[in-house]
Amino acid sequence: MLKKRTALLLMVAAMICGSLLTFFLSSGNSYAGQAVGGEGLLASITNSAGLKKEEAQKIGTALDLIEGNYYKDIDRSILVDGAINGMMESLSDPYSTYMGQETAQKFEESIEGSFSGIGAEVSLKDGNVVVVSPIKGSPAEKAGIRSQDILLSVNGESLKGLELNHAVSKIRGVKGTTAKVKVKRESVSDPIEFAIVRDDVDLETVNARMEKDGIGVIEITQFSLNTADRFMAELSKLEKQGMKGLVIDVRNNPGGVLAVVIDIAQQFVPKGELIVQVEDKEGKRDKSLSKGSSKSYPITLLMNKGSASASEILAGALQESAGVILVGENSFGKGTVQTSFDKQLGDGSLLKITIAKWLTPKGTWIHEKGIKPNIAVSQPDFFSVAPINKKKSLQYNTNNEDVKSAQVMLNGLGFKPGRTDGYFDQATEKSVKSFQTSKKLKVNGIIDAKTAEALENELIKHIQDPLNDTQLKQGIAEVQKEMKAMASKK
Amino acid sequence: MLKKRTALLLMVAAMICGSLLTFFLSSGNSYAGQAVGGEGLLASITNSAGLKKEEAQKIGTALDLIEGNYYKDIDRSILVDGAINGMMESLSDPYSTYMGQETAQKFEESIEGSFSGIGAEVSLKDGNVVVVSPIKGSPAEKAGIRSQDILLSVNGESLKGLELNHAVSKIRGVKGTTAKVKVKRESVSDPIEFAIVRDDVDLETVNARMEKDGIGVIEITQFSLNTADRFMAELSKLEKQGMKGLVIDVRNNPGGVLAVVIDIAQQFVPKGELIVQVEDKEGKRDKSLSKGSSKSYPITLLMNKGSASASEILAGALQESAGVILVGENSFGKGTVQTSFDKQLGDGSLLKITIAKWLTPKGTWIHEKGIKPNIAVSQPDFFSVAPINKKKSLQYNTNNEDVKSAQVMLNGLGFKPGRTDGYFDQATEKSVKSFQTSKKLKVNGIIDAKTAEALENELIKHIQDPLNDTQLKQGIAEVQKEMKAMASKK
Repeated sequence: MLKKRTALLLMVAAMICGSLLTFFLSSGNSYAGQAVGGEGLLASITNSAGLKKEEAQKIGTALDLIEGNYYKDIDRSILVDGAINGMMESLSDPYSTYMGQETAQKFEESIEGSFSGIGAEVSLKDGNVVVVSPIKGSPAEKAGIRSQDILLSVNGESLKGLELNHAVSKIRGVKGTTAKVKVKRESVSDPIEFAIVRDDVDLETVNARMEKDGIGVIEITQFSLNTADRFMAELSKLEKQGMKGLVIDVRNNPGGVLAVVIDIAQQFVPKGELIVQVEDKEGKRDKSLSKGSSKSYPITLLMNKGSASASEILAGALQESAGVILVGENSFGKGTVQTSFDKQLGDGSLLKITIAKWLTPKGTWIHEKGIKPNIAVSQPDFFSVAPINKKKSLQYNTNNEDVKSAQVMLNGLGFKPGRTDGYFDQATEKSVKSFQTSKKLKVNGIIDAKTAEALENELIKHIQDPLNDTQLKQGIAEVQKEMKAMASKK
Repeated sequence: MLKKRTALLLMVAAMICGSLLTFFLSSGNSYAGQAVGGEGLLASITNSAGLKKEEAQKIGTALDLIEGNYYKDIDRSILVDGAINGMMESLSDPYSTYMGQETAQKFEESIEGSFSGIGAEVSLKDGNVVVVSPIKGSPAEKAGIRSQDILLSVNGESLKGLELNHAVSKIRGVKGTTAKVKVKRESVSDPIEFAIVRDDVDLETVNARMEKDGIGVIEITQFSLNTADRFMAELSKLEKQGMKGLVIDVRNNPGGVLAVVIDIAQQFVPKGELIVQVEDKEGKRDKSLSKGSSKSYPITLLMNKGSASASEILAGALQESAGVILVGENSFGKGTVQTSFDKQLGDGSLLKITIAKWLTPKGTWIHEKGIKPNIAVSQPDFFSVAPINKKKSLQYNTNNEDVKSAQVMLNGLGFKPGRTDGYFDQATEKSVKSFQTSKKLKVNGIIDAKTAEALENELIKHIQDPLNDTQLKQGIAEVQKEMKAMASKK
């Protein structure tokens, strides 16, 4: 579960680069082409005069001085890009950025929720590019790529030792081109070669399942253009199965398109109630009212410090206008709206500019503060523990960060190491011995590479078990509580 | 010694901001006005065309889009400055920078080695601005300001709680103006008020003294325009006192003006031998040959990882062309030359641009590698130990960074704490008890605020004692060895 999720996040990260925590304004329901909204705003710009004489002179003089005097050759176009980057940085707003052509393209793919490639979620394991799972209906799945396949090379170029980003860029490519992929599969001794024709692949941003007692769980990983449709499809499927309660999970969801999150919120906010208010420079507010209706079943929303932007709009709307209980951690705190301008610069590059604040239905600006959950629940320490460096054995009287990691792991697994501050005392030694006994390892109380590896494997299993997802458990428990309360009222 | 030096560095840091690690090319011996050298280089620029049409268009479009759409009001001049900053950043060269008017002025004062103010070295202690020492002959000294005076306010504005930079900017001011300074002196119950007329104050960049056996020590803190004259004055004074060997100390010296370090190197490099080679973009080398002569007495040079730029030129020249032994740590590794352009932008701002590499006499480019000492000596750990957080007592079985600091201090002072990894074991407890006994404190083996303070005070004394400056001792020892060798040859 977590492993898959982590791998997925990695792939998304590898794909969309710096565009996380982004949030887009779409003024209408339709989304036409690339530049999101902004047409109205643009009108005022078209007539603008460009650089004033003294501005052009100062910037031009600087550019000439650099080009003429710098001790290395430097391309003027790099300096021009640098100038635009620098203007964006002078705003001290991390969400206003300039993207060159390549980054801009990846960014737009992420907004659209699709990209051109073979359609395999990959992660890095011991320097190998490993398939987590082929995306349903993708060229990779159709060709027969399976989970756990190791991708050795693409069109003859080895992927060994590459960073994930770099490897992904080699696997992906223009729609219609062929990727000859050499694959190592455990059950087969020789590498297998697949010829896969690249195609448009939808990013899976919605994962749904039914838990016991008729409680549905829908995870939204980001708000891309196709996310609202996918969400509604999954929601209606769960409802048809007789869902009695719902947990919406936007943990680690960095945001996405405004119109999309409004569409999703409308499924739960009563008609005519506020979803979000967008406030411009002059303080004028554009209020989004729900055209939908409320649900009869109880709902909780899971969020954490990685839930940002559109995720926070959803959390704010559901909490304030639909009485949904928020469970988890304080959210990220991004209360601004960006729009992208990509036609104006004329060369495929784009400017993403913060154009407004957004406020919750009650008018709160959550920027840099985030939204407080109704029920605060953290994941246990062991969810974020660092791996153990296996080069040196750890034993009684050792004192370092690796011992600390091992202690957090032993503690998470219930082996009571006594302390978790990195000092290997006698209680820790006893705890290691118990763990070694349980795993049928040599019982010596020393954490060597073998014991460390066993400890880490056991922890991964533990993390993957939904029973240990404290936040999810709490979210489900809240839904159950409300279900009972509703039943007793009947 | 260290305390004074640290305080001095703080003041310099407070004064010259980001200009450390800077190194300037002066093409001739004369230094006219502000822009250092570069007149020849400029000729090729004057005829340049400024921004090309498409460059102006792209930058202008971006500027208009930002100004027109950003969710806050933004001044166009900030965006223009941002653009120039961004062009400099696109070079990925930390030494090429754009400075606004205020920073530019401080920068030039640092290059000139003088500034306008009252002339007191100050440091921050418990939130108070404390005088380390008044600079000789300065208005502060003449007015009667003494070491350890606490500066409470200037012209009625309190300095309490300000950052050092901020406080310094309030104390300093235009030559001829008066600073009414309210001072708390320990021996006097009420604050004393001084009216001090600000004047030009020379930064002291050279400190010299004679150690035993006729060994002179000259410390150079940076290479400002007046540093060569000051160095030669101190050198000649020491020689007149019959100096038999010399230690030159450029530890933590961030660099300065090229012509100045060449002048200093000439005192030791035989006539006609190479001091430094400056190589331009085309690979053409401008070789600086010594017009001076070598010395008959042995010389060592002390350097550390804070010795950069001009300090490394001196180290390289003395090592390769004068047979001087380098003692200490690998140097910083800055092998480039900058020049400043401050007239061209026309508004007091300036561009500092890397225009060339410099190479040692043998043609080595030490950039990002530094120079290896002939004799590697580090200062003991306790020279860089962090202070102890005094809010919580430390005792047996505590395990944290504060215990680590205390152990390093106890170890440095000879109280053998057993381990220095932050775990407070029985050996550490015994060591604390010995320390408490020696200081006539309550002997309980617990590091409370009182014991921690006593420990820190004792350590400061220990660091201030030149006998504990391992690098200096080694530098002197080398000189003594050579002196002996020379004597035996006679």
